[in-house]
Amino acid sequence: MKALNWGMIGGGEGSQIGPAHRIATAMDGHFVFKAGALDADPARGRDYAQRLGIAPDRAYGDWREMLQGEKTRADRIDLVTIATPNSTHFEITKAFLEAGIAVLCEKPMTVTVEEAEEIAATAKRTGTLCAVNYGYSGYPLVREMRAMIKRGDLGKIRLIRTEFAHGFHADAADADNPRVRWRYDPAQAGISAQFADCGIHALHLASFVAGQDAKELSASFASVLSSRTLEDDAWVSIRMDGGALVRLWTSSVAVGRMHGFNIEVYGENGGLRWAQEWPNQLFYTPLNGRTQIIERGSSGQSPEAARATRVTIGHPEGFTTAISNIYLDLAEAITAKKEGRAPDSHALSFPTAVDGLRSIAAIKAAVDSHKNGGQWTDARPPSLR
Amino acid sequence: MKALNWGMIGGGEGSQIGPAHRIATAMDGHFVFKAGALDADPARGRDYAQRLGIAPDRAYGDWREMLQGEKTRADRIDLVTIATPNSTHFEITKAFLEAGIAVLCEKPMTVTVEEAEEIAATAKRTGTLCAVNYGYSGYPLVREMRAMIKRGDLGKIRLIRTEFAHGFHADAADADNPRVRWRYDPAQAGISAQFADCGIHALHLASFVAGQDAKELSASFASVLSSRTLEDDAWVSIRMDGGALVRLWTSSVAVGRMHGFNIEVYGENGGLRWAQEWPNQLFYTPLNGRTQIIERGSSGQSPEAARATRVTIGHPEGFTTAISNIYLDLAEAITAKKEGRAPDSHALSFPTAVDGLRSIAAIKAAVDSHKNGGQWTDARPPSLR
Amino acid sequence: MKALNWGMIGGGEGSQIGPAHRIATAMDGHFVFKAGALDADPARGRDYAQRLGIAPDRAYGDWREMLQGEKTRADRIDLVTIATPNSTHFEITKAFLEAGIAVLCEKPMTVTVEEAEEIAATAKRTGTLCAVNYGYSGYPLVREMRAMIKRGDLGKIRLIRTEFAHGFHADAADADNPRVRWRYDPAQAGISAQFADCGIHALHLASFVAGQDAKELSASFASVLSSRTLEDDAWVSIRMDGGALVRLWTSSVAVGRMHGFNIEVYGENGGLRWAQEWPNQLFYTPLNGRTQIIERGSSGQSPEAARATRVTIGHPEGFTTAISNIYLDLAEAITAKKEGRAPDSHALSFPTAVDGLRSIAAIKAAVDSHKNGGQWTDARPPSLR
Amino acid sequence: MKALNWGMIGGGEGSQIGPAHRIATAMDGHFVFKAGALDADPARGRDYAQRLGIAPDRAYGDWREMLQGEKTRADRIDLVTIATPNSTHFEITKAFLEAGIAVLCEKPMTVTVEEAEEIAATAKRTGTLCAVNYGYSGYPLVREMRAMIKRGDLGKIRLIRTEFAHGFHADAADADNPRVRWRYDPAQAGISAQFADCGIHALHLASFVAGQDAKELSASFASVLSSRTLEDDAWVSIRMDGGALVRLWTSSVAVGRMHGFNIEVYGENGGLRWAQEWPNQLFYTPLNGRTQIIERGSSGQSPEAARATRVTIGHPEGFTTAISNIYLDLAEAITAKKEGRAPDSHALSFPTAVDGLRSIAAIKAAVDSHKNGGQWTDARPPSLR
Repeated sequence: MKALNWGMIGGGEGSQIGPAHRIATAMDGHFVFKAGALDADPARGRDYAQRLGIAPDRAYGDWREMLQGEKTRADRIDLVTIATPNSTHFEITKAFLEAGIAVLCEKPMTVTVEEAEEIAATAKRTGTLCAVNYGYSGYPLVREMRAMIKRGDLGKIRLIRTEFAHGFHADAADADNPRVRWRYDPAQAGISAQFADCGIHALHLASFVAGQDAKELSASFASVLSSRTLEDDAWVSIRMDGGALVRLWTSSVAVGRMHGFNIEVYGENGGLRWAQEWPNQLFYTPLNGRTQIIERGSSGQSPEAARATRVTIGHPEGFTTAISNIYLDLAEAITAKKEGRAPDSHALSFPTAVDGLRSIAAIKAAVDSHKNGGQWTDARPPSLR
Repeated sequence: MKALNWGMIGGGEGSQIGPAHRIATAMDGHFVFKAGALDADPARGRDYAQRLGIAPDRAYGDWREMLQGEKTRADRIDLVTIATPNSTHFEITKAFLEAGIAVLCEKPMTVTVEEAEEIAATAKRTGTLCAVNYGYSGYPLVREMRAMIKRGDLGKIRLIRTEFAHGFHADAADADNPRVRWRYDPAQAGISAQFADCGIHALHLASFVAGQDAKELSASFASVLSSRTLEDDAWVSIRMDGGALVRLWTSSVAVGRMHGFNIEVYGENGGLRWAQEWPNQLFYTPLNGRTQIIERGSSGQSPEAARATRVTIGHPEGFTTAISNIYLDLAEAITAKKEGRAPDSHALSFPTAVDGLRSIAAIKAAVDSHKNGGQWTDARPPSLR
Repeated sequence: MKALNWGMIGGGEGSQIGPAHRIATAMDGHFVFKAGALDADPARGRDYAQRLGIAPDRAYGDWREMLQGEKTRADRIDLVTIATPNSTHFEITKAFLEAGIAVLCEKPMTVTVEEAEEIAATAKRTGTLCAVNYGYSGYPLVREMRAMIKRGDLGKIRLIRTEFAHGFHADAADADNPRVRWRYDPAQAGISAQFADCGIHALHLASFVAGQDAKELSASFASVLSSRTLEDDAWVSIRMDGGALVRLWTSSVAVGRMHGFNIEVYGENGGLRWAQEWPNQLFYTPLNGRTQIIERGSSGQSPEAARATRVTIGHPEGFTTAISNIYLDLAEAITAKKEGRAPDSHALSFPTAVDGLRSIAAIKAAVDSHKNGGQWTDARPPSLR
Repeated sequence: MKALNWGMIGGGEGSQIGPAHRIATAMDGHFVFKAGALDADPARGRDYAQRLGIAPDRAYGDWREMLQGEKTRADRIDLVTIATPNSTHFEITKAFLEAGIAVLCEKPMTVTVEEAEEIAATAKRTGTLCAVNYGYSGYPLVREMRAMIKRGDLGKIRLIRTEFAHGFHADAADADNPRVRWRYDPAQAGISAQFADCGIHALHLASFVAGQDAKELSASFASVLSSRTLEDDAWVSIRMDGGALVRLWTSSVAVGRMHGFNIEVYGENGGLRWAQEWPNQLFYTPLNGRTQIIERGSSGQSPEAARATRVTIGHPEGFTTAISNIYLDLAEAITAKKEGRAPDSHALSFPTAVDGLRSIAAIKAAVDSHKNGGQWTDARPPSLR
């Protein structure tokens, strides 16, 4: 595969997200880092980009300059990753889509449902690829779950229990620390904190593995640290359009939990359990049978999982390789389009603008449900009802 | 300690509960099995009791005969365990309490809140000990949790997450099996199935370790197997009177989960995690510190846990010894009363009629809340509001 | 089953071993505690026995008095448990066997191979049951391993890896503590410390599950704390008479290991893994297949395991119930003999004097091998070569 | 840091090792892949290199051609990775070192001790960096162990227990499969199979974390599958020059074990336990204290671990990032030399030619010891005695 040109907006010096994406794109050699507008401060951004090896004429001061510079080049970027503050995702994503440049946007795709609808519509209208970075879906065994469920190993899915609990915002003495406080401040974080930050990953993953989307939900939010305006704990039930019931818990005050992101799927004929912190084992129990441990990399795994596997069985893989699988698939989709051929059918599970839209709608629905005492509320975006 | 006389009602041949209680009472030698009305069929009950070594005149045909026979004997039983069908608990328990004979009743203590109020009032009025068998509270490390929380290791308790999930009622082909079906039939099981059967253990344990009681709750029940009238899955939030928020999930359709009864307690200054299936380790994380593994039997454990510990560190203990700890404490309480002395203060954590009453009230509140779309509902018994 | 009369020698007030055996015998009601010589101090022993409910005429001052008192009684004890200091096992065991009273002796059965040969011969000649308390063999899933291997699930057994490592003798500041020091002093402990104390349990279990006995071995001992004369760490390879190779490690200086007693069995067609600290799960991997988790109490387990199972699946069992399974089988063997019938064939796996003899011979061989630089040494007792 | 030029010998199309190194070098952007002699077939190698983006004039047919082509270029490669068949490591490594080009050689560095001595001497004489790919030493928590031990957290190290057991060569039906058979054939694999393949990783890691080197050892090898000439199971004790005793087991017939590479280190004041399959947690037990779980990425970790950490706490890292840490350090060492400055002192823990030499000597010693019935044998290379 010929290497593609890649650019990034945001992810400046000192950020965590910048290196994460650069590692993920570099890993397989499918993308070469060619352009960037990396910092809110134009001079710093240009300087840092050049230190990372970007040519001076493609080390841009801001995203508008970058869009202007790139859209007419023969060797323009094939994909831009957007990792700017949430409130700017909408206009940047829309602008690049309009220019026909494929986008991978950090979550949340937008702030409002209306904006998300517009992004999804723009992607559809322009025929430009628009992906959203729900990176946990890149784990090989998450893809194995999806493949097993799709081929019917569990029968009809009845129940999904998922949780995403950590304890890093539990320290009351730290609650006023700006690093933490903004997350619970509606002026900066929007309508939801912990559910929008972590819970939505859990809901996306439930949807991803089950092949079903949220239809309606009932939510109970709590500000366990009473000084907070937004929730640091959420307890949500979701009825999926395929009939499954999702039970979802997320919290940021669970002292001792690290990245406690787990999912369990229960169907007519069996159950599956997986935990992000130990992602190389999947526990599968056929109805009335013994629990089996499915090791990542074992023979017999699905093409979707095999394709996302880099090291042999018994050697652990981690989050870095999971995110790189999102890029691995984007590379295939973009290349296939350039070559005028159909993409590998196993490379098409990356989250798209429609997934981004559904997530924004679910967050809004959860907030509304909580305000109405847990009332069951339509979780679908208006355009998909 | 001089051995006490013990009797049992129910627990006939072929039952699981009978041997469980006989093992638990025999283990420490504090109780001698002296009387029983073991079976709904008087002849079978008398025969079985004698085969178990009960003297013929104390091998009774039914509980009324047993009450008559025992209450006037000089060597009458000091404690009766009641393990009959739920609907009979009320009248048997009440009758023995009125006779001044201490009772350990299987859960649920009664069917209705009114009956439970009456039992609690009777115990109080007569001054007769009335305990309810929430046996999980007998695990040494559960008692250690309670002791740690009481002495303030976690600071104020904010959040408790508990779950009790198994998958033994997930087989649709088995749903009509009488062994399973009655549990989901209101005519036989009452107003609640899975929450009353398993969820209430989780709520009791939350209350036990935190030293707080349920004040109000919001419940979402589901019949995941749609053929069922009563719920096989419940999702409940409970606000405790001490300020903690409990998030509770219980399910019987989680294929691959065995006795997945876990509890996590999060306070201002730390967190605790414990799982019934691996009960000999307790995970404790001080705020901003490393998780520590507290081994059952380690030096430095609380007197409450030490008293409940039978084997040395590293040798596992299990459910059998947990239940026997309930009896260990009952023996002390009964003996102290007989001897006119104060009981060991560390032996008083067994669940009482008031705990039984609170549980019945919480079940009723959960059913009502679910019917009202998850509305927050007072979970306290009328007498304790 | 009619309850049997049981007596104990040793296990006086304050010992750990006394309560352990009393709990184990009491649990199922098959044994009633009728006689004892519990303490090296006759008066203390008589007093303590009576406080435990023994009749004054059977509360003996020493074992000789007890043997005299019991052997002619019509209601004499059916089984005596010997839990005295190691150096006295031989003469007490021999005397009771000669009197036709069944014996359960704590390990090690004797101090020397010659004595062990004599005990085994005496048991055989008199036809009196003589068991040795390798209590770990009572765990249900250990019995399941044995049954699986016997019926060929793993094919021919090739390799067994077992370890028994703890860290409770690692503190140099504590090495002179009499509670610890005697274990490493040849004058008190004999020729071997850690291998004889813990390693031999691992070797017995390997033999028990594989149905093979030690033929020759090579040992490397170490006094990791250099102040010690006897070993606190041993590394031993054993060739079994059925062709399996056992790799065995034992240590008492492994800080952080509790009762790290694990066994893994590898055959032509699969592998099994089990750990004493989490005894309710057995991991089974068929050749080229996925690892399966066998839960204690699951349907389909062998009759040997089912018989040793007291609580339902998902409720943990522990060491107390494991030891009680040794007594459960002894009760059946003794009763069957009294009743002149064949015992239940699934009740015959308790360790016998021959197992005790083999263990003593293996300890001697390991010591000799170590002295000879690890030379392969015949591990069999002379009478069984 | 300015990107360095990197080349590779071996790792052709279809190999596993090629992508592993390309990913590891690409990840951080410190190396650019500029030259390669990737295949034993010159034409295939040239073709594949160009498809990977190598310029035609640096897509070489064999290593000699590559050495010629590179050594005189102004932009010659800064580092060459050698991943050819073992028997060729010696001459290729030596040739590049003589040319002053830094080398990362796959293990084993050479076939014989004499060759290894020569490589170590050449590296020393020429002052050219020579590293060996013991990649497991790149895990952050392995580096944390090393740092903790170095700063004295465990006191003097007494005992190390390590094992590397898998079951992928257990299938007798597969033993003649060429993919497996060559490993146990002395003509192709040399003097040792499983110990040289896996066991030596365990010994290296013991040495790495303890900061001690092997002095003498005693080995027992076994061909558990009797058709094999070389060992598939090895059991080795090693006395280290700093006083620690290493107990090491390695096996390839342990059905159900994946990459069961674990290490436990026991010192005067505490113990550490780590397992490669779950590399993001390190278990630390202070003497007489509770076991603590050290999470990778937690605050307070050593600079050596922090430097090797790419993602935040709770997100797992895996083998890919571990290997890339070797390259991360090589980049620093090479760059510092080019810039005439001292390298970051925390970047110098990569394994060198001396480590490679020590490993080859230990393999030879183990083979000799086994042939002599486990006799203790000097494990040091002649030049380091």
